[in-house]
Amino acid sequence: MVTRKELAALLTVVVGAEHVIEDDESKKPFECDGISVYQVMPMLVVLPANSEQVAAVLRVCHQHKIPVVPRGAGTGLSAGALPHREGVLLSLSRLDRIISIEPDRAVAVVQPGVRNIAISDAAKPYGLFYGPDPSSQIACSIGGNVAENAGGVHCLKYGLTIHNVVALEMIDITGERFKLGGGSLDQPGFDLLAILTGSEGMLGVVTEVTVQLLPIPDVAQVLLAGFDSLTYAADAVGAIIGHGIIPGGLEMMDRYAIQAAEDFAKAGYPKDAEALLLCELDGNAAEVNDQIDRVSTILSEHHASSIRVSADEQERALMWKGRKSAFPAVGRLSPDYYCMDGTIPRRHLAHVLTEIHRMSDQFGLRVANVFHAGDGNLHPLILFDANQSGELEKAEKFGADILALCVKVGGCITGEHGVGSEKINQMREQFTDLELSQFHRLKEAFDVDGTLNPGKGIPEPKHCQEYRTLTNFDASTFLSSTANRPEMGGENDR
Amino acid sequence: MVTRKELAALLTVVVGAEHVIEDDESKKPFECDGISVYQVMPMLVVLPANSEQVAAVLRVCHQHKIPVVPRGAGTGLSAGALPHREGVLLSLSRLDRIISIEPDRAVAVVQPGVRNIAISDAAKPYGLFYGPDPSSQIACSIGGNVAENAGGVHCLKYGLTIHNVVALEMIDITGERFKLGGGSLDQPGFDLLAILTGSEGMLGVVTEVTVQLLPIPDVAQVLLAGFDSLTYAADAVGAIIGHGIIPGGLEMMDRYAIQAAEDFAKAGYPKDAEALLLCELDGNAAEVNDQIDRVSTILSEHHASSIRVSADEQERALMWKGRKSAFPAVGRLSPDYYCMDGTIPRRHLAHVLTEIHRMSDQFGLRVANVFHAGDGNLHPLILFDANQSGELEKAEKFGADILALCVKVGGCITGEHGVGSEKINQMREQFTDLELSQFHRLKEAFDVDGTLNPGKGIPEPKHCQEYRTLTNFDASTFLSSTANRPEMGGENDR
Repeated sequence: MVTRKELAALLTVVVGAEHVIEDDESKKPFECDGISVYQVMPMLVVLPANSEQVAAVLRVCHQHKIPVVPRGAGTGLSAGALPHREGVLLSLSRLDRIISIEPDRAVAVVQPGVRNIAISDAAKPYGLFYGPDPSSQIACSIGGNVAENAGGVHCLKYGLTIHNVVALEMIDITGERFKLGGGSLDQPGFDLLAILTGSEGMLGVVTEVTVQLLPIPDVAQVLLAGFDSLTYAADAVGAIIGHGIIPGGLEMMDRYAIQAAEDFAKAGYPKDAEALLLCELDGNAAEVNDQIDRVSTILSEHHASSIRVSADEQERALMWKGRKSAFPAVGRLSPDYYCMDGTIPRRHLAHVLTEIHRMSDQFGLRVANVFHAGDGNLHPLILFDANQSGELEKAEKFGADILALCVKVGGCITGEHGVGSEKINQMREQFTDLELSQFHRLKEAFDVDGTLNPGKGIPEPKHCQEYRTLTNFDASTFLSSTANRPEMGGENDR
Repeated sequence: MVTRKELAALLTVVVGAEHVIEDDESKKPFECDGISVYQVMPMLVVLPANSEQVAAVLRVCHQHKIPVVPRGAGTGLSAGALPHREGVLLSLSRLDRIISIEPDRAVAVVQPGVRNIAISDAAKPYGLFYGPDPSSQIACSIGGNVAENAGGVHCLKYGLTIHNVVALEMIDITGERFKLGGGSLDQPGFDLLAILTGSEGMLGVVTEVTVQLLPIPDVAQVLLAGFDSLTYAADAVGAIIGHGIIPGGLEMMDRYAIQAAEDFAKAGYPKDAEALLLCELDGNAAEVNDQIDRVSTILSEHHASSIRVSADEQERALMWKGRKSAFPAVGRLSPDYYCMDGTIPRRHLAHVLTEIHRMSDQFGLRVANVFHAGDGNLHPLILFDANQSGELEKAEKFGADILALCVKVGGCITGEHGVGSEKINQMREQFTDLELSQFHRLKEAFDVDGTLNPGKGIPEPKHCQEYRTLTNFDASTFLSSTANRPEMGGENDR
């Protein structure tokens, strides 16, 4: 077994001494990602400058069977980039170049460390933008977006990362380079591009991303509607989509979220409403006008107590400001909150929201819902006070019950935040042993030794723990003493 | 090794005697799919009635290491359902039930043997339709569509099969049942749904398909434009998309195709044009009107010599009739033709078409192009006469050169017809040995013995022929004496 010193020497040859971090103080910022309660000090942090260096780092680690954990901007919300105590934390932050914006092909070719919003900024002069817009878009990187298959407010219309990535360059754990996807809609061979997207850094390290760009819509307008009942609002969501209208965004908030957001942002939200819908319509002017009329009618038919349409860009921005600041605003209501990320079939919205409110009474903990209603992606924020004895445990149990309910109605345990370390045990609720074994076989097809981001994403099948003798998976090596505690606040909702 | 007789007895227990076919005359219709020059007589044909029987058939075959080739409607154009001489041909044709149409979720749940068009027919009373529409849609089945990731005229706007499948039930080669995908946009775990789609029956047998349905557009109109030059037409294609307009369909034809289609269908095509574009715009009336104006302007700016807009549904149908009958119409120009299916980046359209016409002069063989211009999916039809000595070989060489050109400009060797048996050697042009090895590892993760549709899709890596000692791949067992000859006519273009 190579020592830390020996490994550092080998990697210094590859990336230079200033990009191999050995001392604890300098490694500290890499101990966790967006969920700071999960913390592990990595053996080494390495910051390669380009794809060749990434390949060389992986070759060295593979040769010595050293675990490697890739990391983007560190904004992830499931501890997917949590370091390995005896491994290398591979930061992609120096690969931050926009290689090209090609308006004639409507694509951007970028390195993984480029921030999500930087792509749209660079494309703007050509009248183009990049569709997926996680709320963390000013900070999160496109490499991390690929790893998590990130979504955002506009994914209902413009799709998730998977729907907007055209090609990837990937380095596998042995240091071999692959080009996945390409310029055409379909490709021969198995769809490696799709399998890499959302694979949480477990199959390969992405070193170049080609994304499709979309024309910036001529017009965008927001309808803001208040409701006296969650059920009315949930039914209105189903009706809008059911009428064949695909809004750019269709977001919902409930009572505590509305109040907190309004106190914070002064966006003119109806503070006495039980539920609020924000519906953005975009496209050409004729289309948007027509859709505003149709959506207004649907909202009225579903007993909206108030409907407002943004008159100009300034008002539209203000309406969104409330939504975008809802997470930190809710943070002011309570010392701590626990952010969940489950997805349900849209038709169960009313039922699940009603159940969550019933559970809220049962647990004696307030809950605020701020979420992507159009695609059924819930983000319940459970409010609690960690200093009150027993509240943390109650919040955890409440959260687990919400996810179990999501699975029960045919949904899933994560919409866009990933599984990472945080939800690895809940994967057993979602999948059978048979399915988990299939995931492991797939993982092995890319990483036979299991050294790339080990212990994340896929738990050992219950009855097949003998299956993967090759991985050194040991949950205890990933968790600090405070681990398994829920996330305490944070603004990185998507 | 189990004998044919013993195997037939075992499978008879599963599906009943009348659904196990042993005699050559009854097996004859299963010898080939849409490419009739590839023919192999299977050992047995088995027709299970439901998913349980499919699982049992697979379990029996797996236990005895018998190759299994799944087959949908047999309309495929790459010999993907070509039987194995010592294997079972597993026909899914009896699994032909529409299980449910659910307008509130906008999905249809169907068995794999349901014909593509039957889904749209069943959804029509609810104002919904299924997007992907291969030209063979009256005959091809949705299971085959999933296997080939089928496209069609409207895939530019509505996507390929992969973009329209929500969930799959799959039985693996050992007979285990998996549910892939589900009701939400993203799912935790690796994206098995995506990897199954387009996997050409090599990873599992699909026994249930849930597809998303789309609202039938209020209005659809077609613009028909003639051009004096291929380059003008190709540039107009790029300009339409470049202006952010995504037509429902954007099809192109060149001289011979125009003339043949017009003689056949009397659709009012300009017979003296070098190129013709058919551009369908659909959506709500306001949007379509606006887009017709914009597209007309773009076509004029790109020197269209004539532009016509369909005045009513009857005229729209007539305009499409010419396109849809172009393949058989071209068939009347020449005793034989060879249909290619390559894809190129849209921006290379003018260059590649010009090159194809240059090659046409060089080989002394006429070529007719009828294709999905919007997504760069070419279908050159090479006209030849197999009775003229040397013409077949010239046509084959011409076809290979076209595909090599597609790869050279960054495209690929198949747009929607798949690799199957036909293009297995061309996969070496598209992919490196490294990539082919990765595909094989992925295949093994689902099918360790390599008995599911063996010898299709992925060739052995040149330098790694020792790699898969477990498969019995022997190309000679798949080909009849006439194999490796190109397709002779046929109406099954997509």
